[in-house]
Amino acid sequence: MADTYNIASARAYSNIAFIKYWGNRDHLLRLPANSSLSMNLSALHTTTTVRWLADMAVDSLTINGEAPTVAALRRVQAHLDMLRRRLGTTLRAQVDSRNNFPMGAGIASSASAFAALTMAAVAALHQQLSERELSALARLGSGSAARSIPGGFVEWRFANTHEDSTAETIAPADHWHLVDVIAIVSHQHKRVGSTAGHASASSSIFQSARVETAAARLKEVKQSIAQRDFELLAQVVEADSNLMHAVMMTSRPPLFYWQPLTLAVMEAVRGWREDEGLRVCYTLDAGPNVHCICAADDAQTVADRLSDLSPDIDILRSGVGGGAVLLPPVVRGRAACTK
Amino acid sequence: MADTYNIASARAYSNIAFIKYWGNRDHLLRLPANSSLSMNLSALHTTTTVRWLADMAVDSLTINGEAPTVAALRRVQAHLDMLRRRLGTTLRAQVDSRNNFPMGAGIASSASAFAALTMAAVAALHQQLSERELSALARLGSGSAARSIPGGFVEWRFANTHEDSTAETIAPADHWHLVDVIAIVSHQHKRVGSTAGHASASSSIFQSARVETAAARLKEVKQSIAQRDFELLAQVVEADSNLMHAVMMTSRPPLFYWQPLTLAVMEAVRGWREDEGLRVCYTLDAGPNVHCICAADDAQTVADRLSDLSPDIDILRSGVGGGAVLLPPVVRGRAACTK
Repeated sequence: MADTYNIASARAYSNIAFIKYWGNRDHLLRLPANSSLSMNLSALHTTTTVRWLADMAVDSLTINGEAPTVAALRRVQAHLDMLRRRLGTTLRAQVDSRNNFPMGAGIASSASAFAALTMAAVAALHQQLSERELSALARLGSGSAARSIPGGFVEWRFANTHEDSTAETIAPADHWHLVDVIAIVSHQHKRVGSTAGHASASSSIFQSARVETAAARLKEVKQSIAQRDFELLAQVVEADSNLMHAVMMTSRPPLFYWQPLTLAVMEAVRGWREDEGLRVCYTLDAGPNVHCICAADDAQTVADRLSDLSPDIDILRSGVGGGAVLLPPVVRGRAACTK
Repeated sequence: MADTYNIASARAYSNIAFIKYWGNRDHLLRLPANSSLSMNLSALHTTTTVRWLADMAVDSLTINGEAPTVAALRRVQAHLDMLRRRLGTTLRAQVDSRNNFPMGAGIASSASAFAALTMAAVAALHQQLSERELSALARLGSGSAARSIPGGFVEWRFANTHEDSTAETIAPADHWHLVDVIAIVSHQHKRVGSTAGHASASSSIFQSARVETAAARLKEVKQSIAQRDFELLAQVVEADSNLMHAVMMTSRPPLFYWQPLTLAVMEAVRGWREDEGLRVCYTLDAGPNVHCICAADDAQTVADRLSDLSPDIDILRSGVGGGAVLLPPVVRGRAACTK
């Protein structure tokens, strides 16, 4: 049977941005307003199996073994439509996607999800694409997914064409032993999703100044990584996070992702670094949870202190992750036959 | 005795800015980067008595009957030096200043203090100055003090000369019955004072965009006051406060005035207005306390809800205040003799 050959599984890791992606120069192609830079997270990954089939009317999707929301299904179908056009197929896809981290943890899964989906979908059609090409395709599903294709510390360049706005490794995962100690302060889903948020970025009078100065900050972060200079990293990473959230809070309507406990963690982290010399800094995505980027030696101390700060804080912890990889296909509910 | 004639008392009211003053085009003259607009607060005032004396070596100052900090004394002496030069005297001043609100409440007193000091000091020398002239002189002590000389709703214009950067009433106190319900979330003194903060404003990449667009917001606030349009007022006042705090948080080093409870109050206020139609909006000065500007009919509800929100919130409440006024001189510790 042909369809037993059209199956592949891929795993991709979540990432946390040191220089943020917020706002597009082209919404349809998700061409970002500025280049960004992130670290992959080894402990947070999505594993996705794609099987292309001729005998299905529509694409199907399960997330963690369950039926997805209508919004999630539509977004994946739109990505599959794009992949069909670019890969030259009319087959339908059966997609099974699983995160190893709790869905309701407020940890964004779209980066790892669209990276894994893209890699598995391409492989299941037996097509060979370069890392750059995979990164560009993943970007069309979720901008930050472009950064979850390469491994380690990753830069995603802005560009004016689909082909050129891709991500690549600037330093491998083992270059610098950083740890992301994530303070989960809220398990609530975002009130405003990232896609809608990106569209609102230009409504802030501050967005253009943030975008214009992003290249200088990115250069400093690259320098801090090359030299393993934690103090420089901390200064720029916190500043860049503050700049993005300042843009969010001054958009129309304003987007406030911070919660009271978010602010308490941010202030504590600054104090631990400035007053006590702990190598830790904070950065936040479009949500209330605080990513505490630590030198590995200080990660346990930071985790302990976060737990002491409030009983309402849960902790996730991750080292630096590799790039997206193919796995032996896993078929659930239907016998796998790859031969 | 000549000195018994050189005494005067004045009272000036605190004010809360709807369009914020943050950053100067000239630090020495306190010429602001942008025009601002505020409402005087009838319930929060400073009463200051100035006696000019020939037989003193240095100026003396008491605040609420007690010796001031060295920093406060130096700032008042510098203002008195300036007044001596402009008013043509070499006398020394004995200054007694009293706030009717608790010093440690985190409510800025420099606006009412320098307005009252300026008015009393001028009157005690039997000089007649116009409201504009008094406003300009008060500005040299504390920028926002310029707005505490006129009454009601007050606009302070930016300008390139000392004489032209003055404040004037745009609507009297009884034009619109607004109430400021102040949620005191912290009694701590500011870690970074306003004067140092103003100097740091230009270190934010966002300051120029805030300044460039301030005139448009000021026009909208004036329109909202003229038409008593609470919804328009709320939109612009909250946006302008967010813009100033975004500039603060993105200065180098960053200034975070918000505390966890600050954020909780801001979110609650937004919800009460947007979800339930209460006429209330928030605005914050360079501190963590939240000024909840209310239509008078909704002030009690807002005060009750703030009290319910947290046992750590104290409440102050004020209507719209008048301009600075002269009072019969009060002499403490020395017999008054005005005849």
